[in-house]
Amino acid sequence: MNISTRIKNMNYSPIRNIVPSLENAKNKNLNVYEMHIGQPNIKTPDAFFDGINNYKEKIIKYENSAGSHATIKAFCQMYKNAKIDLTEDEILITHGGSEAIMFAIQTICDPGDEVIIFEPFYSNYDSFIKCASVKPCPIRLDANNDYKIPPYKTLQKAITNKTKAILLSNPNNPLGTILSKDEMHTIAQLAIEYDLFIITDEVYRQFVYDNCYYESFMNIDGLTDRCVLVDSISKHYSACGARIGVLATKNKEFYSQALKLCQARLSVSTIEQIASANLIYTMDSYADNVRGEYMRRRDVFCTELSKIDGVDFVFPKSAFYVFATLPVDDTQSFVRFLLEDFEHNGETLSFAPGAGFYINADIKNAARFSFCANACDELKTAAKLLKIGINEYKK
Amino acid sequence: MNISTRIKNMNYSPIRNIVPSLENAKNKNLNVYEMHIGQPNIKTPDAFFDGINNYKEKIIKYENSAGSHATIKAFCQMYKNAKIDLTEDEILITHGGSEAIMFAIQTICDPGDEVIIFEPFYSNYDSFIKCASVKPCPIRLDANNDYKIPPYKTLQKAITNKTKAILLSNPNNPLGTILSKDEMHTIAQLAIEYDLFIITDEVYRQFVYDNCYYESFMNIDGLTDRCVLVDSISKHYSACGARIGVLATKNKEFYSQALKLCQARLSVSTIEQIASANLIYTMDSYADNVRGEYMRRRDVFCTELSKIDGVDFVFPKSAFYVFATLPVDDTQSFVRFLLEDFEHNGETLSFAPGAGFYINADIKNAARFSFCANACDELKTAAKLLKIGINEYKK
Repeated sequence: MNISTRIKNMNYSPIRNIVPSLENAKNKNLNVYEMHIGQPNIKTPDAFFDGINNYKEKIIKYENSAGSHATIKAFCQMYKNAKIDLTEDEILITHGGSEAIMFAIQTICDPGDEVIIFEPFYSNYDSFIKCASVKPCPIRLDANNDYKIPPYKTLQKAITNKTKAILLSNPNNPLGTILSKDEMHTIAQLAIEYDLFIITDEVYRQFVYDNCYYESFMNIDGLTDRCVLVDSISKHYSACGARIGVLATKNKEFYSQALKLCQARLSVSTIEQIASANLIYTMDSYADNVRGEYMRRRDVFCTELSKIDGVDFVFPKSAFYVFATLPVDDTQSFVRFLLEDFEHNGETLSFAPGAGFYINADIKNAARFSFCANACDELKTAAKLLKIGINEYKK
Repeated sequence: MNISTRIKNMNYSPIRNIVPSLENAKNKNLNVYEMHIGQPNIKTPDAFFDGINNYKEKIIKYENSAGSHATIKAFCQMYKNAKIDLTEDEILITHGGSEAIMFAIQTICDPGDEVIIFEPFYSNYDSFIKCASVKPCPIRLDANNDYKIPPYKTLQKAITNKTKAILLSNPNNPLGTILSKDEMHTIAQLAIEYDLFIITDEVYRQFVYDNCYYESFMNIDGLTDRCVLVDSISKHYSACGARIGVLATKNKEFYSQALKLCQARLSVSTIEQIASANLIYTMDSYADNVRGEYMRRRDVFCTELSKIDGVDFVFPKSAFYVFATLPVDDTQSFVRFLLEDFEHNGETLSFAPGAGFYINADIKNAARFSFCANACDELKTAAKLLKIGINEYKK
């Protein structure tokens, strides 16, 4: 029997892949500070659970393929508040941001086409692109240049006649950077000159710190028809397991074609949609409070991290990750060491090895730490464990 | 900007596509007997809602990519009861049967590969295959031969060196037929001779009537490694909107590769999984009762249908559909007529035009009626409306 090349070319998730080692550590009753995954430890708002309790139907029926009216309406209001201009007939509800990205790629690209991504990237971008038999074309961001978007001429070199889209996250996962006005205009110029779609994953847009500049690509002049927005309630509302996302565009052709994919998979979970609609409507202060908490966590963890010899990183301005280089030969084997062969006072930590955020996995010494899952004092301990772990590992 | 050929080649769902006409009819306050969609009107078991209420966590976290332990365990028990041999590490939980089929095709086929399907087929098979840039290769089942599987030599003619799998539903949607032992062995022989996977969609397996023979492909000798089972709680438990499905196989290579797709989309809705696990565990008599009710509905509707001049169909032995030919030129325009230009005492009906269950849409006079959404007396009325509608339409 045949197993496809497309799937053989895909990688296991560098984040999900450490689960066996993690379970191994937990089975040994170790207390693990889980910093490998963007799973917040902050309570999902009551409005979500209230929404579920308000469901009085006796049958769990299919919803509309495009999404329930209530959920679409709620997102529409949310975008209005965020000053992103989207009407109800421009929004599709998806099984998380993941399905939105998958649908965007399938709608735009045929096998052999190419999509530009910036390295390091959210690791599943590579998977989504490859499972569509499309080629990911990375443009590497340089740590020595604070991971800034390279000059226009450098970007141009990555374009071929097969290039159909640019896929990026802004605010950035794993970097915690935010595109400047200039960087956005450089990317916009590229998209316009080479007639490309921009698939803009903005699932961290609620978490921008220090009054930094952040603008949605949806609001950049000249891109109205060219943008596909990916969004999700997962991070905004600490509801990752709800799997409620958004694929939105003002491009009518894209919308009407992507609707075919929505119809094929019938609909998104009915109850989760109802709960999400309620969540979005009744939430005001939640994101503000959570933002403050994430900032405090960032400050604590980064302060401790900067005290460790040989650790280097760009201070994150958004999201809840720190992407750091560590003074070890290979972070993949280091994280396995931490989970399988190390402990300090019955504790250890996990992180996501950085190689999984690059196409060629040639960056061996990087690591993504998520600071959304632990309180400030825990992060302080985790950083200390990291320091001890590095020393032990190097022996 | 580019829109992919793969998506342009896809069709809108023939079932979901009539929604605008349907909403039009409802806006005119017509009472519509909805027979176009397999959305049961039978109450979802309380166990599902109890499962939701039992969720006491404060955070809606990501579940494991392969599925929650509880849900996998529950399905495993369900298969044990159904005498289908599957262990926990052979079961992946998916967003409905739809995602399971999509993942199966992507795991097996590269662009340009071919999948055998039997016409008429569940319309979304065509969509799932095309969105993977794979070619659907139909083998037509002949209405004059009661839609039986053709002889082995006929099947062989459809095979090329690009053929990688056979995708079928058993019990059959839209036909309501069940494969005989002989038919299954013919298909098995083909799969073995040409080294193909069998993707066997058995989401209607609880609804087999009149003590007919039904066997899972998972239990056919010599196919152990060659079968991929697609299942779902949607129809079994009247919980279509939960979007909880299964992709199961004893083929370890397939399982471990398909897991990459599960990891890429992170996880399936957490609460729906918990509710489903509870549902499966506590359900005993439910399926038996519902089976009896569907049989009664089938008998009533088919009796009325057989009284209409020029209507022809094979009496369904499973599932909850009747696939009939009607004495009209084009069932697509006929269903639009029923919803937009017809009413009788303020009532009308809907059905799914048959052309959407064929690749070339050349069968213009067929229709799929779903008898799961209405009680017996309603189905009697719906059949009468159909008779009057046919007469009006022909004028």
